[in-house]
Amino acid sequence: MPELRKDYVTDTWVVFSAARAHRPGAFKKEKLTTDPAKCPFCYGHEPMTPPEILAYRKDGQPNGPGWWIRCVPNKFPALQIEGEVHRRVNQLFHSVSGVGAHEVIVETPDHEVNLPALSDFQVQEIITAYKQRYLDLTRDKRFKYILIFKNHGVPAGASLSHPHSQLIATPIVPRRIMEEVNAVNRYYESMGGACIYCEIIETELEEEERIVSENDSFISLSPYAARFPFETWILPKAHEMSFEDLTDHERTPLAHILKDVLGRMDRILDDPPFNYYIHTAPCDRKETKYHWHLEITPRLTETAGFERGTGFYINPVMPEDAAAILTERVKLSEKGA
Amino acid sequence: MPELRKDYVTDTWVVFSAARAHRPGAFKKEKLTTDPAKCPFCYGHEPMTPPEILAYRKDGQPNGPGWWIRCVPNKFPALQIEGEVHRRVNQLFHSVSGVGAHEVIVETPDHEVNLPALSDFQVQEIITAYKQRYLDLTRDKRFKYILIFKNHGVPAGASLSHPHSQLIATPIVPRRIMEEVNAVNRYYESMGGACIYCEIIETELEEEERIVSENDSFISLSPYAARFPFETWILPKAHEMSFEDLTDHERTPLAHILKDVLGRMDRILDDPPFNYYIHTAPCDRKETKYHWHLEITPRLTETAGFERGTGFYINPVMPEDAAAILTERVKLSEKGA
Repeated sequence: MPELRKDYVTDTWVVFSAARAHRPGAFKKEKLTTDPAKCPFCYGHEPMTPPEILAYRKDGQPNGPGWWIRCVPNKFPALQIEGEVHRRVNQLFHSVSGVGAHEVIVETPDHEVNLPALSDFQVQEIITAYKQRYLDLTRDKRFKYILIFKNHGVPAGASLSHPHSQLIATPIVPRRIMEEVNAVNRYYESMGGACIYCEIIETELEEEERIVSENDSFISLSPYAARFPFETWILPKAHEMSFEDLTDHERTPLAHILKDVLGRMDRILDDPPFNYYIHTAPCDRKETKYHWHLEITPRLTETAGFERGTGFYINPVMPEDAAAILTERVKLSEKGA
Repeated sequence: MPELRKDYVTDTWVVFSAARAHRPGAFKKEKLTTDPAKCPFCYGHEPMTPPEILAYRKDGQPNGPGWWIRCVPNKFPALQIEGEVHRRVNQLFHSVSGVGAHEVIVETPDHEVNLPALSDFQVQEIITAYKQRYLDLTRDKRFKYILIFKNHGVPAGASLSHPHSQLIATPIVPRRIMEEVNAVNRYYESMGGACIYCEIIETELEEEERIVSENDSFISLSPYAARFPFETWILPKAHEMSFEDLTDHERTPLAHILKDVLGRMDRILDDPPFNYYIHTAPCDRKETKYHWHLEITPRLTETAGFERGTGFYINPVMPEDAAAILTERVKLSEKGA
């Protein structure tokens, strides 16, 4: 019997239906390979991008080679960095001017490598760059939220294969963040000051069956109502509201668990397309209750008219099976695909 | 300057950003062609599907040829037709048993034709079949909502190219429907009994610039906060709560406007992949305020980490431009792509 499950926190419902896994072409994985000769993120091609905002390099000139991390404005930005934020309400028509930042974080000069194959040092440097850009942009009072995210592979929306992350700062707090923040606040108030994400971590550690991996500071798990096959979340075990609270001490274990989870997906699911993004408190932290986390969502199935029409998701892989496969207790061929 | 717009009814926000249209490979259209020799929806292949639930045929045996519309259970159902609906709440874990209907409506015996090229009679018969299946399933008290939808093309989630629609009956009212119903109710109460969808129709007819087409009974328009390039809605001009209220008199103009809008997309956008779905009142209509409509959403762009992480959409085509292109006042090459 299929099962419908509600997300721990929001009113998002997921239909778990193993029958859907047997559809012809149920799991698709289109690989993306762009030509290094035309790649704007490779050494020597720095003039192909807008001037850099940030780079980690020992020697050499800005906008030249020698860097190991480089952050530049997105050449096709969704939002525009200059201008004031105007809000207009006219009858049924509500709009806000599209002011914001849209940046690219080039994760390595190496055109071909995937994130889990990078050195521990390099992944820590990516995390350091995320935090540095986050802290810089959060000072701009026009921005209400900063989303750090990564698109890997064509079905995940990537148009360049060179490893990179992105960051978009928005003039309003996004809907999904508000839903989570509101639910966290309601739980906090009704449960005498308890954090729902702390409860999730405690309960899932007791139940065990959806845990993918853990270390001293972080846990990774397949959420109870995973919307997508092999969706995996990484959460700090300590109650930390915002990604910017990440301590130097936590950077190494975060790099380890991120490499671990993406490495398992790369190896077991054969380099699947995926998105990940960091959910953190809105920039204006006053009176916010939250617990930041990173959500990894592989793109192995298409959403279709049912998902668009209902806001439900259909997932052919139970999260307990996904965790068993990612921890290699069960083979992929036995379950899920 | 890009612009953020809020949906008329729900808290859905869209980033309109023309710069995104210039990304490499921004508009993708993978065509789907499945082999008629292996097609379960072609004449003579009726035994390849589960036994039919409904068919329009003059002569001939059930589950044989001679039909012009045929409705069968989906071979890979998302929900299971037998069983009772159980709801479980245990700490953080909420679930509902996956009981529901999942049916396929084969729109024509012709393997190759697209819906806008079908005869008026045939499209009216599709609408009649939608309504007949809707009325039958709404009597089953286990079902709270019935979504009628269509997936056309690979990026839209179709796995067979033979023209067909689908229907899923769910044991809970979907999130997007509840959001719309709640917003309609709030508007009704705060505006002294006015329907927000009736206001949308009236305002858009005055403004003109987002209208795609109209006839005596229906209007089609590019919504102010269209989430997707060339998203188009069809609404009945009369205030009708539910699709099941469709009168015999309205069936011909509904067939005409559906053929008209899909025909414009087919011709001007070169047979794009798309989804459409009908939004109607929940099965239990008591005290519901609503105004049914049909939403057509072409699939020309990928959603990526930003959309997954925020719940925002990025649309490179302004709805005013989309309406101008679909009404052939402006050429596609001048705007949008």
